[in-house]
Amino acid sequence: MKSVNLVVLGTLAFDSIQTPFGKVENVLGGSATYFSLAARNFSEVGIVGVVGKDFPHEHLEFLKNKKIDLRGVEKTEGKTFRWEGYYEYDMDQAHTLKTELNVLETFEPKIPDEYVGCEYLFLANTDPEIQLEVLKRIKPRHSFCDTMNFWIEHKNAELTELLKKVDGVFINEGEARQYCKTPNLIQAGRKLLKLGPKKIIIKKGESGALFFSDKEFFVAPAYPLEIVKDPTGAGDSFAGGTVGHLAKHQEFTDAAIKKSMVCGSVVASYVVENFGVESYKKLKHEHIQERYDTFKRIVAFDHEF
Amino acid sequence: MKSVNLVVLGTLAFDSIQTPFGKVENVLGGSATYFSLAARNFSEVGIVGVVGKDFPHEHLEFLKNKKIDLRGVEKTEGKTFRWEGYYEYDMDQAHTLKTELNVLETFEPKIPDEYVGCEYLFLANTDPEIQLEVLKRIKPRHSFCDTMNFWIEHKNAELTELLKKVDGVFINEGEARQYCKTPNLIQAGRKLLKLGPKKIIIKKGESGALFFSDKEFFVAPAYPLEIVKDPTGAGDSFAGGTVGHLAKHQEFTDAAIKKSMVCGSVVASYVVENFGVESYKKLKHEHIQERYDTFKRIVAFDHEF
Repeated sequence: MKSVNLVVLGTLAFDSIQTPFGKVENVLGGSATYFSLAARNFSEVGIVGVVGKDFPHEHLEFLKNKKIDLRGVEKTEGKTFRWEGYYEYDMDQAHTLKTELNVLETFEPKIPDEYVGCEYLFLANTDPEIQLEVLKRIKPRHSFCDTMNFWIEHKNAELTELLKKVDGVFINEGEARQYCKTPNLIQAGRKLLKLGPKKIIIKKGESGALFFSDKEFFVAPAYPLEIVKDPTGAGDSFAGGTVGHLAKHQEFTDAAIKKSMVCGSVVASYVVENFGVESYKKLKHEHIQERYDTFKRIVAFDHEF
Repeated sequence: MKSVNLVVLGTLAFDSIQTPFGKVENVLGGSATYFSLAARNFSEVGIVGVVGKDFPHEHLEFLKNKKIDLRGVEKTEGKTFRWEGYYEYDMDQAHTLKTELNVLETFEPKIPDEYVGCEYLFLANTDPEIQLEVLKRIKPRHSFCDTMNFWIEHKNAELTELLKKVDGVFINEGEARQYCKTPNLIQAGRKLLKLGPKKIIIKKGESGALFFSDKEFFVAPAYPLEIVKDPTGAGDSFAGGTVGHLAKHQEFTDAAIKKSMVCGSVVASYVVENFGVESYKKLKHEHIQERYDTFKRIVAFDHEF
């Protein structure tokens, strides 16, 4: 049986979000949702995750219609994971008001046979012990993980163990500084490389992202937006666009990663222009092409010194 | 009489600086000092400023030996401007401990005839009324200004008057947000353009700089440094490298500004690697060329989507 090309371990959630531009309640969210909706623009993608009995059929249909493989999504007794938060005027960080783990508390990932041995695996932010277990069971050709401050603080050893086993890391700048105990992101990137992962991507929000490998350093800018309505899901969308584009081309080279990061930035730029997953409803290939071309222009300068 | 190509209005100062990497006392500093030491790598440059009787001959000799024109620097009764500050672990902002205006309190700019009608004028951060007066008296072909939070708060109308009269602005991200009353830098850039200046450069520290004109948007990354010992003077050095390079080529086009911003970033990257103006003592043209070439690489990605 042909295995799925790209798999993401992550959450499907109900989000309630308030920003200076409005408010939505109990909308479809979660790391696996954003990641897969971004990745599916480039590659087939399957989700490993869990929802509760309250998760509506229409959300599953929406994802299925986007050709996202849900064979690894278990529907179980209990309520779906919920997140409630808000962003202030500057939109630079999410403030959590409430997190209800619900079905995540007893989550035991079910992994379809077709996911085993996939080309690319993305382990979205969750307990590093679960990330390690899924990595071990899926045995992908290439793997990336993300994480957050809570695990850096409370499961540092397990996280370090995970970092030694993945091929690449997506981490935001605050968490990179926290984990590496340095305010300098270039030092942080180099420290992470020394731990084992060969490809480090540090996410800087509206300042773009940095890429480190043993041979390369690359700066991907963020797309210049006048209106950001809701930053929720930007990081997972960036990762989804990046790894999705990589998975499409099956090349695990620095050149491919740099190009893929620009695709990730483009997808994320569309997502934050609307609340929740709204932008994904009308995102087309030509939109991605259009902003990719803009990216070429906004970093270009005359090479003659 | 041939006029000087590039003139800067700004300060010459004694700085006392503490960072996690060390401490220096009463070293040569000031906006005009950093600006001119950066600009002189590309263009002739003259200073309009004032020092006190305590300003040592060796500092003036150092600047003169760098071929900086000091005919507009007045030595007057009283003490030189002093700044004392420190940076915390994250180095992202200067904390002022003490400012002694001294001779700046009664500063009346003396402008040599040779400075009048210069090609480029940079009005470093100071009272916008003084900036306006110097702009009016020098009548440059092209002018840029900088400013800071204090003037945005206390002389907003005068600052707005100035912005209507200059061709370009260098402003850091916090001040752009404050003046334009928006957290979004793209909106801030567009608002500043509407006021009058045709070229807007928003400085983002370790995240580089943004450029806005009516036709162009450009992102200049910052050079990736593992060690930043002292960020003092980075902004003025960036402006000095940028405007100096522009003045050398005498082109006031968007393409020239983009290339010049990369030169500005390169010069600033050397400056922050050492305390005060130390790096300028050994900065050579080949060093600038070397990092300029690196800049080309770190923003490059495959143009085939």
